Amino acid sequence: MSELLLKAKKANELTGLLGAASTAEKNRALKFISQALVTEMDYILQENNKDIEVGKANGLSDGLIDRLRLTEARITDMANALEQLTDLHDPVGETTFETERPNGLFLKKIRVPLGVIGMIYEARPNVTVDAASLCLKTGNAVLLRGSSSAINSNKALVTVIHKGLEKSSIPKEAVQLIEDTSRETAEKMFKLNEYLDVLIPRGGANLIQTVIEKATVPVIETGVGNCHVYIDETAEKSMGIDIVVNAKTQRPSVCNACETIIVHEKWANQHFTILVDALVSKGVELRGDDIAMQLDNRVNAATKEDWATEFLNLTLAVKIVNNVDEAINHINQYGSKHTEAVISETQSNVDKFFTFVDAAALYHNASTRFTDGFEFGFGAEIGISTQKLHARGPMGLDTLTSSKYIILGNGQIRS
Amino acid sequence: MSELLLKAKKANELTGLLGAASTAEKNRALKFISQALVTEMDYILQENNKDIEVGKANGLSDGLIDRLRLTEARITDMANALEQLTDLHDPVGETTFETERPNGLFLKKIRVPLGVIGMIYEARPNVTVDAASLCLKTGNAVLLRGSSSAINSNKALVTVIHKGLEKSSIPKEAVQLIEDTSRETAEKMFKLNEYLDVLIPRGGANLIQTVIEKATVPVIETGVGNCHVYIDETAEKSMGIDIVVNAKTQRPSVCNACETIIVHEKWANQHFTILVDALVSKGVELRGDDIAMQLDNRVNAATKEDWATEFLNLTLAVKIVNNVDEAINHINQYGSKHTEAVISETQSNVDKFFTFVDAAALYHNASTRFTDGFEFGFGAEIGISTQKLHARGPMGLDTLTSSKYIILGNGQIRS
Repeated sequence: MSELLLKAKKANELTGLLGAASTAEKNRALKFISQALVTEMDYILQENNKDIEVGKANGLSDGLIDRLRLTEARITDMANALEQLTDLHDPVGETTFETERPNGLFLKKIRVPLGVIGMIYEARPNVTVDAASLCLKTGNAVLLRGSSSAINSNKALVTVIHKGLEKSSIPKEAVQLIEDTSRETAEKMFKLNEYLDVLIPRGGANLIQTVIEKATVPVIETGVGNCHVYIDETAEKSMGIDIVVNAKTQRPSVCNACETIIVHEKWANQHFTILVDALVSKGVELRGDDIAMQLDNRVNAATKEDWATEFLNLTLAVKIVNNVDEAINHINQYGSKHTEAVISETQSNVDKFFTFVDAAALYHNASTRFTDGFEFGFGAEIGISTQKLHARGPMGLDTLTSSKYIILGNGQIRS
Repeated sequence: MSELLLKAKKANELTGLLGAASTAEKNRALKFISQALVTEMDYILQENNKDIEVGKANGLSDGLIDRLRLTEARITDMANALEQLTDLHDPVGETTFETERPNGLFLKKIRVPLGVIGMIYEARPNVTVDAASLCLKTGNAVLLRGSSSAINSNKALVTVIHKGLEKSSIPKEAVQLIEDTSRETAEKMFKLNEYLDVLIPRGGANLIQTVIEKATVPVIETGVGNCHVYIDETAEKSMGIDIVVNAKTQRPSVCNACETIIVHEKWANQHFTILVDALVSKGVELRGDDIAMQLDNRVNAATKEDWATEFLNLTLAVKIVNNVDEAINHINQYGSKHTEAVISETQSNVDKFFTFVDAAALYHNASTRFTDGFEFGFGAEIGISTQKLHARGPMGLDTLTSSKYIILGNGQIRS
């Protein structure tokens, strides 16, 4: 039997036991892992360094090397996050609905773990610890399939996770790394419906698209964010500028950063130059439609492709519109259903925006950058869902659960 | 553009408008459709008769012909169900979570329609009206893809639904039938991620498996029920017999009927003959393991395949065990995660069964036949999910919704 099948089968066998584990047992396991990360720091850094060396030899960009790199500070952050996770509410076992039927049947719906979660992810090795800990807290088994560029780091981290688990009552096979990083093995994992309950891909658009196209196991689509800020006619000048600058430049490389702004022509006629001043001073390159280019010659021409692009850098597309309906249509045509914001003092336009824009998170008078499990108060996040089934938006611990109906009778039969 | 693409695109364009429709508007539309079903009864019966004639000429079994057949009584039932649907709570717009964050952002999570639902189903034409009405009530557009054997009935029913919708404020394209019933078109529909938010297959195991294997659109897996009743050592004699007879024989052709019974050896030693008497008198054929065959010579030998089979008829498999753990292992190995029951007076065994059996609905001292949206008090049901994502068990109106986060600010930016 292949490594994948052996590990998937083992994970599946553990689901009953993991679902029955108490919150205290799970928290103890998380604390032991947190401690192991600190005591094994040198070993982790040494193994991570192997990946960094290989990455440099292979000519990875500085940005990618930085995403791959672990440091004392980053490992300490991971260890602290594990400690914090022990304080969060454990959703497993919670009753979410109950009713007594006229025939005397007492029915309740309780939260249970999803079962076995397959994580498919790219370079950042911190996802290994994040995903493992969130799955442990919710009584799920997890199969981790990271990329070959982080294989030494991921092996080291899972070895350390196992050292922690060995001190706890949770079997160490609750967390397993698929060490074979070949594409063939990944594709087999996509179709392991017998053993896996869900796949969660985390990474670039290509990775996510591949999983959606090839998987037969249910997938939760995450992450791609082509987010817009619409500045309406009545938006307050400084609020519009501050929010756009923040949404674009505070951290351009993340999915909730803004990629296109849509500006009402009347607002633009008064304030566009000052907005462009503020953006350009932060290093933003603007690409706009004809009207935007006429309003300010620092705006370059946008292509149709620009409207659909998640730049993840300091490029920003600009469209000028005559009303909120044009803004809504543009967003629904080009957006990725992640996060959209409207800046306006006209309530009827805000209501329209909230009703007709189809996205996971909609903001009035605030930056798109708040779409995040921590900012929403969930305490943790396994990803941001951009699909409509099961979970939409930042995914907290609840989203790693399914349900069971428990029905108590005293001999009821159906007539 | 093909029929499929035209209709899918049209459905997708309507999602904003349908999501914004008021409960009163949607209920008026349902009432008009209900009336149209009654006034157009002769036309529907005449078109249904064409399918019946073709079916007979093609040698369809009496069972399949019966599933295909519409009658005055059946159409009246559909019309009444539509009336009843208007009384049910409309989940759209409901707030399911709200919080104020320390930075002053006010966040709420509201229910919204899923968007466009693709229904893929086999012969029974009543699914056409069921699915259309549940989708309408929840503000979803629906693309109906029935089987060629019911095409005349389905066309007639959708024509009548459109007559009803034309009197309402809901555009008739909210409900569209894909008239091209070729397999190629179905397979294109499975991959229409651009326009469809979810596929719900309803029918036999083969249909459902095909959709799971080929679809890239998210699927809700429904329906296959290999359900068990476990009679524990301490089960009351008459309760055990009554529940098994009811679960197996009250309506053997449905997914929540029992397919295998598992009997504790000590209970069997005392009561097995009386249980077999009761089952045989109802026409049940028993297929069991060696011990069951030794206990009663009316039991034939079971093959390994029998343990995994959803018979949907009066065949019943029988396994004798020494304890609840063996019962749980057998169920988790062969069950389809639909419905499982334990008959016992030993609370610790019931608790173990509830914790370790992995299924959508678990019963103590009641028949499996209650797993059904109406019996659970949901008032309606679009199917019974046997997967863990999004919805598990009988799917009421809530399960046809997704969510949106609405966040209200006064200029918040992220630091």
